[in-house]
Amino acid sequence: MKKIINCPDDVVSEALIGLALANPQLEYVPGAEVICNKQKSGNVGVVSGGGSGHEPAHAGYVGRGMLDAAVAGNVFSSPSPDRILEGIRRADSGKGVLLIIKNYSGDIMNFELAEELAKMENIEVDHVVVRDDVAVEESTYSTGRRGIAGTIFVHKIAGAKAATGATLAEVKKSAEMAIANVRSMGMAISPCTLPAVGHPGFSLNDDECEIGMGIHGEPGIEKTKMANSKELAKTLLDKILADYNFEKSRVALLVNGLGATPLMELLILNKDITEYLVKKEINVVDTLVGNYMTALDMGGCSVSLLKLNDELEELLAAPCDTAALKRG
Amino acid sequence: MKKIINCPDDVVSEALIGLALANPQLEYVPGAEVICNKQKSGNVGVVSGGGSGHEPAHAGYVGRGMLDAAVAGNVFSSPSPDRILEGIRRADSGKGVLLIIKNYSGDIMNFELAEELAKMENIEVDHVVVRDDVAVEESTYSTGRRGIAGTIFVHKIAGAKAATGATLAEVKKSAEMAIANVRSMGMAISPCTLPAVGHPGFSLNDDECEIGMGIHGEPGIEKTKMANSKELAKTLLDKILADYNFEKSRVALLVNGLGATPLMELLILNKDITEYLVKKEINVVDTLVGNYMTALDMGGCSVSLLKLNDELEELLAAPCDTAALKRG
Repeated sequence: MKKIINCPDDVVSEALIGLALANPQLEYVPGAEVICNKQKSGNVGVVSGGGSGHEPAHAGYVGRGMLDAAVAGNVFSSPSPDRILEGIRRADSGKGVLLIIKNYSGDIMNFELAEELAKMENIEVDHVVVRDDVAVEESTYSTGRRGIAGTIFVHKIAGAKAATGATLAEVKKSAEMAIANVRSMGMAISPCTLPAVGHPGFSLNDDECEIGMGIHGEPGIEKTKMANSKELAKTLLDKILADYNFEKSRVALLVNGLGATPLMELLILNKDITEYLVKKEINVVDTLVGNYMTALDMGGCSVSLLKLNDELEELLAAPCDTAALKRG
Repeated sequence: MKKIINCPDDVVSEALIGLALANPQLEYVPGAEVICNKQKSGNVGVVSGGGSGHEPAHAGYVGRGMLDAAVAGNVFSSPSPDRILEGIRRADSGKGVLLIIKNYSGDIMNFELAEELAKMENIEVDHVVVRDDVAVEESTYSTGRRGIAGTIFVHKIAGAKAATGATLAEVKKSAEMAIANVRSMGMAISPCTLPAVGHPGFSLNDDECEIGMGIHGEPGIEKTKMANSKELAKTLLDKILADYNFEKSRVALLVNGLGATPLMELLILNKDITEYLVKKEINVVDTLVGNYMTALDMGGCSVSLLKLNDELEELLAAPCDTAALKRG
């Protein structure tokens, strides 16, 4: 294993310190492994988090117009309820807090427990669960579909809604609307190595990829011969389009890298995806291409589509200022 | 070789099309492989470019407040003079154009030839050459020091100066000031594979890294045992600090990934670099961490330091709106 780290036990805290040093508007809360805004928003707080190793998720999305706090667990491991509770406290301006949870059993259990603890402190808390991955219906770490890169859209929508001064119920409603309208599908080319393990978690042959693999290396649909970009675009989109009716819709598109995939390749894939969507008479009005929800050093990508209505389009385009996503 | 591409011959044009599709304010000029702003700035034009494979460089920096056009060569290969001439034409609003060239022999020859051709069309053109890499004094593809990730700072400074309505001579002066004050140093952990070659360009053992390797896989200073992040921070910074006097200065810092290095690791390195600079009484006032000047799927990183004065600090902080760098 060759990684730019010091000690596997310290990767999470050191990465968060490195993030806060680069972004002086952010505060790092040691022990809780929380990144929050130094200044409270005065609005409904939006909190997300989960296992580490998905950088820039989740702490990279803390900032004006998006998250108020992010809570980091160990690599690929849910944060404990006390850490999440600290994130809730840091995000609360007295108007309540919405938790955005990716659908993994550990996250659901710990975030819901933290929600109960926060309510005992008289903080109003509610939550939504993102299940955007259409690859598999049940998975190693989840009951039901997994939450993956489409979660970024949910962060953005909820954060933008909160910034309008909306109530907790209204922010939740917009987040639920985003969740209902987002679908994702991924594939892996090469495995990732957990710092504490030191060797790759799975293997793929030189001519092989795995369609539908999860962002922790959980099994996907099938191992298959590596295809070209046009074929991959079709494979990923056909599964998404079969799952939800995007016909003649306006959509936002996220072409997401898993960590080790060069931007050149993501841009080529974006071309093929966009052209395929045009053929299907689907109107892409907003596109993100880059590393938004990674899996350490995994090679591969995911594609997320969010069906837009007027409210979602406006909230997605609204200003935000975070380390990983800025809109003016 | 597993890459998300269609045909090795098409990777440059397809990636640029993918970029323009994701950023509707950009225009892709087929054949010339130029990305430019759809709307001319009305100011001095700033143009850069070079071999492809360094995404988001250079086309990712086209936009308000930074570059007016970027010209792409084939992978790791300089663009031809006619392509660069087209970039100059697209960037010219009648007030002249500054070319920002990284110091590689092919780029110098082709950009200078294009400059002469443009002058024959009565376009006022001047150029600057970036030589920020302190690793080696002579290299495979350059006479003198190589231009690497510090070039991003030069793009930003020149673009911000142009946006003030400055003359070509003034924009050149600010760019030269940035060049005089920027130093970079890199290292590689794992090799990169050119799409048209299909196998890695060099090899490194499982416990080995190469200090000072170039962004095309050119030899660096030495192959050495892979060190931890703290030691790497010291190795890279000691070489930079020995080369130029940053003592008690304000600096901007760029911790740059070469393509396959996870953001988590760059953030950890940023922590160790910033802490080392603090110890040296160097005041980091502006930090970028991420993939800004890559080398396809190479693993590794580079560090760039820009010594700031009031003008450089103000120009660096000025608004810009490009695919890869946004400041509000």
